[in-house]
Amino acid sequence: MSKQKDFVKEITAMEVDFPQWYTDVVLKAELVDYASVRGSMIIRPYGYALWENIRDELDRKIKETGHENVYMPMFIPESSLQKEKDHVEGFAPEVAWVTHGGNDKLEERLCVRPTSEVLFCEHYAKIIHSHRDLPKLYNQWANVVRWEKTTRPFLRTLEFLWQEGHTAHANGEEAQEETLKMLNVYADIAENVLAIPVVKGQKTEKEKFAGAVATYTIESLMHDGKALQSATSHNFGDGFAQAFGIQYTDKEGKEQFVHQTSWGFTTRIIGALIMVHGDNRGLVLPPKVAPKQVMIVPIAQHKEGVLDFAYNLKTQISKIARVDIDASDKMPGWKFNEYEMKGVPIRLEVGPKDIENGQVVLVRRDTLEKIVVPMSELEITIEKMLEDIQQNMFNRAKQHLDGSFKAVTTWDEFTAQVKEGGFIKAMWCGNEACEDKIKEETTATSRCIPFEQEQVSEKCICCGKSADKMVAWARAY
Amino acid sequence: MSKQKDFVKEITAMEVDFPQWYTDVVLKAELVDYASVRGSMIIRPYGYALWENIRDELDRKIKETGHENVYMPMFIPESSLQKEKDHVEGFAPEVAWVTHGGNDKLEERLCVRPTSEVLFCEHYAKIIHSHRDLPKLYNQWANVVRWEKTTRPFLRTLEFLWQEGHTAHANGEEAQEETLKMLNVYADIAENVLAIPVVKGQKTEKEKFAGAVATYTIESLMHDGKALQSATSHNFGDGFAQAFGIQYTDKEGKEQFVHQTSWGFTTRIIGALIMVHGDNRGLVLPPKVAPKQVMIVPIAQHKEGVLDFAYNLKTQISKIARVDIDASDKMPGWKFNEYEMKGVPIRLEVGPKDIENGQVVLVRRDTLEKIVVPMSELEITIEKMLEDIQQNMFNRAKQHLDGSFKAVTTWDEFTAQVKEGGFIKAMWCGNEACEDKIKEETTATSRCIPFEQEQVSEKCICCGKSADKMVAWARAY
Repeated sequence: MSKQKDFVKEITAMEVDFPQWYTDVVLKAELVDYASVRGSMIIRPYGYALWENIRDELDRKIKETGHENVYMPMFIPESSLQKEKDHVEGFAPEVAWVTHGGNDKLEERLCVRPTSEVLFCEHYAKIIHSHRDLPKLYNQWANVVRWEKTTRPFLRTLEFLWQEGHTAHANGEEAQEETLKMLNVYADIAENVLAIPVVKGQKTEKEKFAGAVATYTIESLMHDGKALQSATSHNFGDGFAQAFGIQYTDKEGKEQFVHQTSWGFTTRIIGALIMVHGDNRGLVLPPKVAPKQVMIVPIAQHKEGVLDFAYNLKTQISKIARVDIDASDKMPGWKFNEYEMKGVPIRLEVGPKDIENGQVVLVRRDTLEKIVVPMSELEITIEKMLEDIQQNMFNRAKQHLDGSFKAVTTWDEFTAQVKEGGFIKAMWCGNEACEDKIKEETTATSRCIPFEQEQVSEKCICCGKSADKMVAWARAY
Repeated sequence: MSKQKDFVKEITAMEVDFPQWYTDVVLKAELVDYASVRGSMIIRPYGYALWENIRDELDRKIKETGHENVYMPMFIPESSLQKEKDHVEGFAPEVAWVTHGGNDKLEERLCVRPTSEVLFCEHYAKIIHSHRDLPKLYNQWANVVRWEKTTRPFLRTLEFLWQEGHTAHANGEEAQEETLKMLNVYADIAENVLAIPVVKGQKTEKEKFAGAVATYTIESLMHDGKALQSATSHNFGDGFAQAFGIQYTDKEGKEQFVHQTSWGFTTRIIGALIMVHGDNRGLVLPPKVAPKQVMIVPIAQHKEGVLDFAYNLKTQISKIARVDIDASDKMPGWKFNEYEMKGVPIRLEVGPKDIENGQVVLVRRDTLEKIVVPMSELEITIEKMLEDIQQNMFNRAKQHLDGSFKAVTTWDEFTAQVKEGGFIKAMWCGNEACEDKIKEETTATSRCIPFEQEQVSEKCICCGKSADKMVAWARAY
């Protein structure tokens, strides 16, 4: 342990300065670097490999649920953006505008997509004619731009990567079913792939997506007690269909408007991964998405046979896990720190004595527990350990979430609890003025109206009037 | 055959109007649709599934050759773009400029990346310090924008998708080796995955990439006798390194500039796929990238047992091929046309009589040959047929390319041959004035100086002066 101190010092402790801890981790684990344009990020190989693993898992689920991938252009003419009133009001203040192509001023300026409802709607208006054309279940993986004033890598950046699903259905019931189905897909990815437990619920009117009838969300809890909106799914009703004229002829020959949904999941989730699982040594990555699941560190590698043995181990393990070896001439202690910083789930140490004894050493990143494993049990032990780590990380995060999720019934309790962090269960009358007041006075916001409701009290936590909705409140990213 | 006439009429015959044939195919096979911004395209599910298959094959090769994926921002500050003189001259006339973020005018305008040398260079200048940091072998999959005046789906669009590799090396030899290695990866993908034979060679000074020391290309031949540049790989020498200050300390402790490469492969290749393999019935897709390799069309599907049998076939075949079934209530003749139009390699027909006789009917898209196959030989026949189709498509295209690739020694032969189409082998003195004159008088351009040289004559085809370079000339897309 003592050898590691020098390196650990380079990361600010999260108890000392959480934002600085976060920045240290994203930079030192080489997930991202800053780019020349303010608020933009370069996703480095380690960060991108992580994103690829997340993306591949989600893409498979999206396809399994019957969706098809497409690609829409990234420019939207200003006149198209303006077709749906709420939508343009919500997004116009934060879009980047292209005004010149080469040396020529454009007749109409183009916005760089902040989201692509407009483009999907225009396309759907062209290709949907009959009830036989429904449902349309499209998704795209793309970059989008939002001109944010305050930015932080992954959490809020000028440009980010995401998938956006856009679907069209014959009626409202089907659209609602789709909206919730995809919210559940997100929750499944968060909990079972990323080991991030979530609170599922509906956004209030104030917090819903610009142009949506209803927005649903999965919310997760960071180490510092703040919430992070981790993905959203929207039911649009037929509002966009009316604005863009997306109609079909039903079985009775009548013209009907389609009902639509959209749902998105972004690189922001990597910020959640860091802040839910990380510790003062750096990242802790869930095995299912870790770019490397096992890192082999040879000990006394200059001694005869060690490197050969280690490379053979790599070949052997590569059949059951994503494995790599660091055979550089750096000291083992440096390597231990490096791969702890990078959150590799299992470190495998092997030196001359281990070889002699027919064993290796495995160190778990989540608990730092160290065990000696006979070679004959290596594969089964690694497989089981990866499963254990995945489960343990989820359990630990779930405990944090559940432990923090306290019901309060008085304003004093509420304000005290906000300061303590975590989600708060408190009743709300449904009035936006109360949301505004709570935000103003405590900086907490309504994260969602959880699907799992409890009648915590009879009265709104803010105004004291009769209330039948329990809201999950928290300070949030 | 007669049933199909109605549908075939919808595609213009390629002999009548090749550009219209192309447009008919891309639209009617539902590869793309036009978008509201001029020159942009929507890549529809069938087109995008094709791109995903191509991308996955190429991505695997890129990773196998030791490269790592990253993601760079899409905005480049104008001042950064201007650092390398040739590069900015080449690209500035065709970039889109962002001048406003939200309601605010930007202090410095940003260009939407037409290519990302600038961003990789700025990043490399930050992260490369020592010879231990080399080589850096990065790649990204991204969208880029070039403000083209004349556009056509896939071939030339305002925005397109591509991968761009950017590498940094300790010296010129390694950079040159990398440049050619990646050209060979492209040639391998083109020939062995896409069944598109290519001519490999070096671009002339006039045709090389803005900022490169040397550009290499793979060129392919379309049905109409025009060439299409299918991918390029560039050796930058240390020009960008000098402009961006990318230096490392070598083993002797001396500061050195890195040598760099870049190489790109785009959605344009789908245009090549269409124009190399398509026919008057529509697309013909190579099995290795076809979204569906086998399409099952049930005959008399209302009869008892037919659909059950067809769905069981689908399950059975799904173990060896990408298979789908069209059980819609459209007529079999409509379905035959539809999947010929979409270029599905094998159509499987099965009706009551086939079931009775324990057989199905397979129809190859490339030759339209129809065979009856006993159920006991189904899998092995499909596997072999997919291989045969892949090979036959390559052989056919190779025959077209080789047959057209004629050596000429006089100006009259040259101009006559340009009119006939195909590549022309002719000597060139190395003088840009001759290239200009040839382009002006014949519209043919130098596609490349092929690696496989022949001394066709002693004299430049244009000026008659002494010449030792054989150039492949052609009209091109």
